[in-house]
Amino acid sequence: MSTKQDDELAQERLVDLAAEFYDQFAAGEVPHMDIPTRTKSNIVFDEDSNVWVYGDRTSTRTANSVRGARKLLKASYTIEFLVNQLEEDRSSTLRELYYLSESWDNEEAQFKSQDESNQLVEDLEIVSEVTREDFHMRPEESGATLMGPLELREQTRRGEREIHCQKDVGEGGYQIPNNPDTIDFLDHDIDFVLCVETGGMRDRLVENGFDDEYNCLVVHLKGQPARATRRITKRLHDELDLPVVVFTDGDPWSYRIYGSVAYGSIKSAHLSEYLATPEARFVGIQPEDIVEYDLPTDPLADSDINALESELEDPRFQRDYWTEQIELQLDLEKKAEQQALAARGLDFVTETYLPERLSSMGVL
Amino acid sequence: MSTKQDDELAQERLVDLAAEFYDQFAAGEVPHMDIPTRTKSNIVFDEDSNVWVYGDRTSTRTANSVRGARKLLKASYTIEFLVNQLEEDRSSTLRELYYLSESWDNEEAQFKSQDESNQLVEDLEIVSEVTREDFHMRPEESGATLMGPLELREQTRRGEREIHCQKDVGEGGYQIPNNPDTIDFLDHDIDFVLCVETGGMRDRLVENGFDDEYNCLVVHLKGQPARATRRITKRLHDELDLPVVVFTDGDPWSYRIYGSVAYGSIKSAHLSEYLATPEARFVGIQPEDIVEYDLPTDPLADSDINALESELEDPRFQRDYWTEQIELQLDLEKKAEQQALAARGLDFVTETYLPERLSSMGVL
Repeated sequence: MSTKQDDELAQERLVDLAAEFYDQFAAGEVPHMDIPTRTKSNIVFDEDSNVWVYGDRTSTRTANSVRGARKLLKASYTIEFLVNQLEEDRSSTLRELYYLSESWDNEEAQFKSQDESNQLVEDLEIVSEVTREDFHMRPEESGATLMGPLELREQTRRGEREIHCQKDVGEGGYQIPNNPDTIDFLDHDIDFVLCVETGGMRDRLVENGFDDEYNCLVVHLKGQPARATRRITKRLHDELDLPVVVFTDGDPWSYRIYGSVAYGSIKSAHLSEYLATPEARFVGIQPEDIVEYDLPTDPLADSDINALESELEDPRFQRDYWTEQIELQLDLEKKAEQQALAARGLDFVTETYLPERLSSMGVL
Repeated sequence: MSTKQDDELAQERLVDLAAEFYDQFAAGEVPHMDIPTRTKSNIVFDEDSNVWVYGDRTSTRTANSVRGARKLLKASYTIEFLVNQLEEDRSSTLRELYYLSESWDNEEAQFKSQDESNQLVEDLEIVSEVTREDFHMRPEESGATLMGPLELREQTRRGEREIHCQKDVGEGGYQIPNNPDTIDFLDHDIDFVLCVETGGMRDRLVENGFDDEYNCLVVHLKGQPARATRRITKRLHDELDLPVVVFTDGDPWSYRIYGSVAYGSIKSAHLSEYLATPEARFVGIQPEDIVEYDLPTDPLADSDINALESELEDPRFQRDYWTEQIELQLDLEKKAEQQALAARGLDFVTETYLPERLSSMGVL
């Protein structure tokens, strides 16, 4: 849970950063900030946490040019804003921060573009080791929904809410809040967590009562999952010791969705330990299912082929399983959507495909 | 509410359509189906319902070519599928229908692309005058969320759920189900309905307690609103007699979002009476606000200018208000996002902008 202590820690870390600039000034140094280089070549596998994190290479933001000095000035103003925000127990979006900077008294500190303010907040996240959520920065778009035998308590600004994610919600399910660390898990009857890419398939599973019959919690990923969705998935795995499986379309973009749940993303490798669930397993659609279940397919586009080839090079996909599947798919020259299972009837996915796959994976 | 009677009516209408083909055959005619022409030039304003609907021009799908005959064959198979689906009280997505056609015994009846099956279902909607929801066809993506003093009862496959959209939900709000006609409004304390384009602004209003202070129901549109979101907005207006206002960014794409809530879309003018809320009013960001509130702006791109010019020609925007605002914006050559109000502070939108605008509109 996001507590008063978390807020105080975040404030402290931010103030420390600003103090560092001050100390550098005082010591006669040019103020600077070291930040890990954020490229594919600088992510390394961390054996302890089992996720990909940034390596040792760093870039330096320094005030030895007007441009660099302006960056550190903006960082100082942003730190002040964030510290005040935490003090007042408020929150804001990245976009609001960008616009809000127009009201700052020093014109040099104002952001010229939203990219600039987004980038700065990410830098602060990395350097302070405090997540954006703990700065009370909200994402623009919210997480998705949960449906399954889980009872939780959410700490809202209007008091606590106790919600059972089957009995107290409509067919749309429970809407994950922007910061899922405001949730406590109270009780559950979940055997495994099933993350689903598309809304159509999520609705199919709920209509067919799959969550009820198999005691599973259906997490709708809604395409590339929001941070809130990845965070709650990780917490369900870590705190409730639940297996997590990911069910997507069978194409390279969907493997990336799986990758972002399981391994974290290159852009936010500093958050892997907070967001990634390395134990999450891929339940499909896998390229071999296209053959085995004789699914309707579409031909691979050039962009699909390029994406698959780039995945073969991606450190996160360097496992025998993925090499085999991706090479098979490049041979087949085909891809399939998860809803293609409907070619075998509307119940095929819940009566045959998932039970077979989950049994062979040892989840059922 | 979607009742057994609705299902029976939908079945009846569908069977009638198939029976018509049969009768045409029996009478020695070439079977055919007449469908309103769906272009901007064939939408007319209906004075009774106050919305734009299709005019008198029709196109004919006829079996006098192999291609035409195949279309009617597909229609017959689809009708059979939908009738069975209604009988079994199941539902499916448009995408599932496309894939499912692979299992049909007549290969000529199978769809060659998803566009084809989507188009056919729309045709059936128009000709039968039954909405897709009443065929139990689910959209791929769900509606958005509600937050405010509304108590409702949702009829789910697992029984009834009574939910208060402030007291029984987390900060994410109540997730609108795919078919909001399964909802009954039980009780409320709402003075007006406020539809909001972006998640960031929706969260701002909720964080600032705007729904609570002004007794308003915040409906998140999530960009171009899903049918479920437009439908529930219309029902709130019609059944609870509530004013509806729409709060979006100040650019031509956002005026289209307003337009789709208020006037319906050209592509689905047959649904205007079901989905559109002609009494919905635009609360901003209006081009004159850019001047009046001195908002941070971006320059209009060429695509923005083209879109504004096309709106000046659009029959749905032929009102003095819109002509003035659009011409002003073309003069200013600027656009502004709703979150740009944050340049005046995080509370400006709830303490100044919305109260001022809503008062001047007579809503407050």
